Amino acid sequence: MSEQIRVVLDEKEMPRQWYNLNADFRRPVPPPVGPDGKPIGPEQLAPVFPMNLIEQEVSTERWIDIPDPVLEVLRIWRPSPLQRAVRLERALGTASKIFYKNEGVSPAGSHKPNTAIAQAYYNKIFGIKHLITETGAGQWGSAMAMSCKLMGLDCKVFMVRISFDQKPFRKMMMRTWGAECVASPSVETRAGREILAQDPDTPGSLAIAISEAIETAVTAKDTRYCLGSVLNHVMLHQTIIGLETKKQFEKIGLYPDVVIGCAGGGSNLAGMTFPFACDKIHGRNVRLVAVEPAACPSLTRGAYAYDSGDVAMMTPLMAMHTLGHAFVPQPIHAGGLRYHGMAPMVSHAVREGLMEATAIPQLECYQAAVLFAQTEGFIPAPETSHAIAQAIREAKQAQEEGKQKVIVMNWSGHGLMDLAGYQAYFDGKLTDYHLPDDELDKSLQCLKGLPKL
Amino acid sequence: MSEQIRVVLDEKEMPRQWYNLNADFRRPVPPPVGPDGKPIGPEQLAPVFPMNLIEQEVSTERWIDIPDPVLEVLRIWRPSPLQRAVRLERALGTASKIFYKNEGVSPAGSHKPNTAIAQAYYNKIFGIKHLITETGAGQWGSAMAMSCKLMGLDCKVFMVRISFDQKPFRKMMMRTWGAECVASPSVETRAGREILAQDPDTPGSLAIAISEAIETAVTAKDTRYCLGSVLNHVMLHQTIIGLETKKQFEKIGLYPDVVIGCAGGGSNLAGMTFPFACDKIHGRNVRLVAVEPAACPSLTRGAYAYDSGDVAMMTPLMAMHTLGHAFVPQPIHAGGLRYHGMAPMVSHAVREGLMEATAIPQLECYQAAVLFAQTEGFIPAPETSHAIAQAIREAKQAQEEGKQKVIVMNWSGHGLMDLAGYQAYFDGKLTDYHLPDDELDKSLQCLKGLPKL
Repeated sequence: MSEQIRVVLDEKEMPRQWYNLNADFRRPVPPPVGPDGKPIGPEQLAPVFPMNLIEQEVSTERWIDIPDPVLEVLRIWRPSPLQRAVRLERALGTASKIFYKNEGVSPAGSHKPNTAIAQAYYNKIFGIKHLITETGAGQWGSAMAMSCKLMGLDCKVFMVRISFDQKPFRKMMMRTWGAECVASPSVETRAGREILAQDPDTPGSLAIAISEAIETAVTAKDTRYCLGSVLNHVMLHQTIIGLETKKQFEKIGLYPDVVIGCAGGGSNLAGMTFPFACDKIHGRNVRLVAVEPAACPSLTRGAYAYDSGDVAMMTPLMAMHTLGHAFVPQPIHAGGLRYHGMAPMVSHAVREGLMEATAIPQLECYQAAVLFAQTEGFIPAPETSHAIAQAIREAKQAQEEGKQKVIVMNWSGHGLMDLAGYQAYFDGKLTDYHLPDDELDKSLQCLKGLPKL
Repeated sequence: MSEQIRVVLDEKEMPRQWYNLNADFRRPVPPPVGPDGKPIGPEQLAPVFPMNLIEQEVSTERWIDIPDPVLEVLRIWRPSPLQRAVRLERALGTASKIFYKNEGVSPAGSHKPNTAIAQAYYNKIFGIKHLITETGAGQWGSAMAMSCKLMGLDCKVFMVRISFDQKPFRKMMMRTWGAECVASPSVETRAGREILAQDPDTPGSLAIAISEAIETAVTAKDTRYCLGSVLNHVMLHQTIIGLETKKQFEKIGLYPDVVIGCAGGGSNLAGMTFPFACDKIHGRNVRLVAVEPAACPSLTRGAYAYDSGDVAMMTPLMAMHTLGHAFVPQPIHAGGLRYHGMAPMVSHAVREGLMEATAIPQLECYQAAVLFAQTEGFIPAPETSHAIAQAIREAKQAQEEGKQKVIVMNWSGHGLMDLAGYQAYFDGKLTDYHLPDDELDKSLQCLKGLPKL
C-alpha cells in the first residue's frame, strides 16, 4: 500500500486539556453587555447557566483540564481519525494533500457531543436535573439528548420547524436517547406564541428556538439552558478537535498550510482552528478559513455590532458579526448554518486578522459533497459540504499557482440524517440564494437603539 | 482514567490476508448441486459470477491475499475499533467484560462493505461493467452502491418492498452513490411479475429479490450478480473482522470466552467467529454463538437440507439450514435477518459442533438495543440488536454462575437508517412473533422433490 492515509491516536494520546484562545488574543474580545451597554456580570447569567460553566465562559486561563468523567465518555469515539482524501485528490488532479478530521464518528454523527458531554457533566455536578436546548438541523439536539442520557439528566429540545418537518428521523433519534422534542415556534412559550400569532407558517429559526428554550429554562426548577455554539465555553470544549489534529499531523511529519471549517455559530470551526490560531499568533505561517453559506453570510456581509443571540432578546448582547437577530434565513438544507450571528471569539479572530471568511452558495456545496461521497465514501452533512467546497477551491487554486499545499478541513458530521437534501439536489429542486442587499439592510434595522461597540 | 476501553489499530496493522475456514473443517462442506443432485462445476456459475470469485468460492487455501486495491479502500474506515461497553456493564451490574467490534464506522454504516469492495474489485478486473444485486434492510444495497462507485462500476439494486417502503432514506443513500434502486418484486423481471400476479401486496423477500437480480444479471451484457451473504467467498472477505479482533485482544492481553454475532445469511457472524473457530479446532476453549430472530429461525428450527438460495430456484442447491425457499418471513424490522436459509459454511460449523445457535424474539432485542444506545451512545441496527440481546443474556448467566467472562459481539452496524423501528417499539406497535410449527411444516414442503443430503 501507498503512504499512510489514516492517522489514528490511542485513547491514551487524547488531549487532557482544552485550549482557550482568550488567553492569547492580543486585544480581548469585547465583553457581553446588557441593554444599558454595561458589561454583564457572571451572576446575571446564573438563572440560565450553572456557575461552573459561567466561570469557563469568562476564563482567560490558557489551558483548562478536561474532567475525567468527560474524558471517559469522549473516548467512546475519540480521538477521531485524521484521514487523507486521496481519492478526492485524484479526482481533482491536484498535487496538494487534502486531509479531513472525521468528526462524523461520534454516536450522534457530528462534533456536537464534544461540548454536549461537557455541558451535561458541569450541569450535573452543579445539581441541575433538566436541560433545555434548541436545535437547527438536529445535530445539536441529538448530541444533547445523548449526552443528557449518558450523564443522567432529563432533556427537552426545541427544534426549528423547517428541520422538524424535513428530518423526522432526528426526532426519533432524540427519542431513542430519551429526550423530548418540540417543533419551534411552539405554543408552549410566550415567545413562541407571539411569533405564531404574527406568522403561523414561519419556518422558524434558531434565534426563535433559543428564545423558547431560555424562557422554559429560567421558569422551571433545577433547570438550565444549554447552547451548542456561539459561547466561549462551547468554543473551548471543541478545541479537542484541533488539538488532536495537531498531534496527528506531528505523527506524519506534516503541518497544514490551510485549515478550514464551515461556520454557522462557529463551534466546529473554532474547535478545529483555534489551536492553530495559537501557533499563528506565535509566528507560524498558517491560513485559517471560515466558510459560511451565501444565504446566511454573517461573517462576510453582516455588521460587527452588539446584538442578541435570540429573537426575543433574552440573551446578553454580544459583540459579533451579525445579520440582525430578527433575520429569518432561507430554508437551505444546511440547517446548522442558518444563524444570524457568529461566535464572538470567531468574529474577533476574523477582525484580528487571524482568520479569513468566505461564503459559498448551496449548489457548489452539494456538488462538492457528492464528489466527496463518490470518491471517499462518507456522505457529508450539508453543513460540512461548505468546508469541502472550500477545500476543493483551495486545491484548485494551489494547482493554478503551481503549488503543493497541505489542506485540512474539519469534517464536522455525516449526512445520513440529511439525505432529503441530496434527493432535492439530484431532483434539481435546489437553487442558490444570495442574500439581497435590501433584505440585509432591512434585517440590520433591528440593531438600531442597541448599545454601540 | 480507568483501564483501556477502546482498542484501535494503525492501518499498518490491518490484516493482509483473509482466513478460509474451509481449509480447517474436519469434514468438508457438502458441495452445491444442481436439480439432478450432481455437484455444480465452476463453469456453471460463470454466467452469474466472474471466474476469479468462483475460484475463491471453491478454494480450500487457508490464507488468501487481500489485493492492494481492496486494502486501499478498506483502510478508509478499517481497522475498526474494538470497544468495551463499560457503561452497559455497569447498567447490568455484571462483573463480566463486554466488548463490541464496531463495524458501524464504515461509510455505509455496517460490515457489508468488507465484501462489497472486494466483489466490486474482482468484477472490475474481470472486465465486468454492471453489477446487479438485491437488498433486504438496505445495508447490502448501500454497501454495493458505494463500492461500485469507488471501483468504477454501474450498480442496480432490487430492494425488498417492505424495506423499500419503510426506509426511504436508504434509496436516497444508494442514489447519492450513483446506484439505481428498484422495489422488489418489480415488473422488470419474469420472476417479479409472476409473484406480483399471485400476490400484488406481497411485502417481498430476499429470496424473491435474489431471483430478480440474477435474472437481470444473466440476461445482460458485461453484467454479473453479487450477493452480500451466504456464499463462501462472502464469508471469506468478512474474516477481516475477526482477524482484527484477535489482534486487538492480543494488544490488551485478553481472549474472549464467548464470541457472538447475529445471523441472517451469516456473513457478519462468520466474519467475526471463523478466525476464532480456527482456534477452537486447534483446541482453544471458546464458545461461538449465532443469534437469529425467533420469527425467522433457520438455524434453530429449519431443516438441514439441499435448498435453493432464491424463490425462483435460479441458484444452485446448497447444503444449509433452511425454512424452505418459499418461506416469506414476517415483516420484522431486522430486515437483514429475514432470509430463509443460512450460509452453508455457518450451517456446517453448527453441525460440526463449532458453533451454537439461539433465537431471540424482537421485543427483547429492541429492549437490548435501547439499553445499549442509552448507555454506550451508539444506536444499533435492528439486526445488531440480536447480538446485543445475547451478550446481555451471557453476562446475566455468568453473573448467576458467579463467573467473570470476556464476551465479545460483532456490532454489525448502526441503526441511524432504521429509526422507524425504534419509533414503532416506543409506540408499543411491535409484537413478538414465534413461527408456528404448522407454518414451518407448510413452508418446508417446498423441499420435497429436491435432491437429499
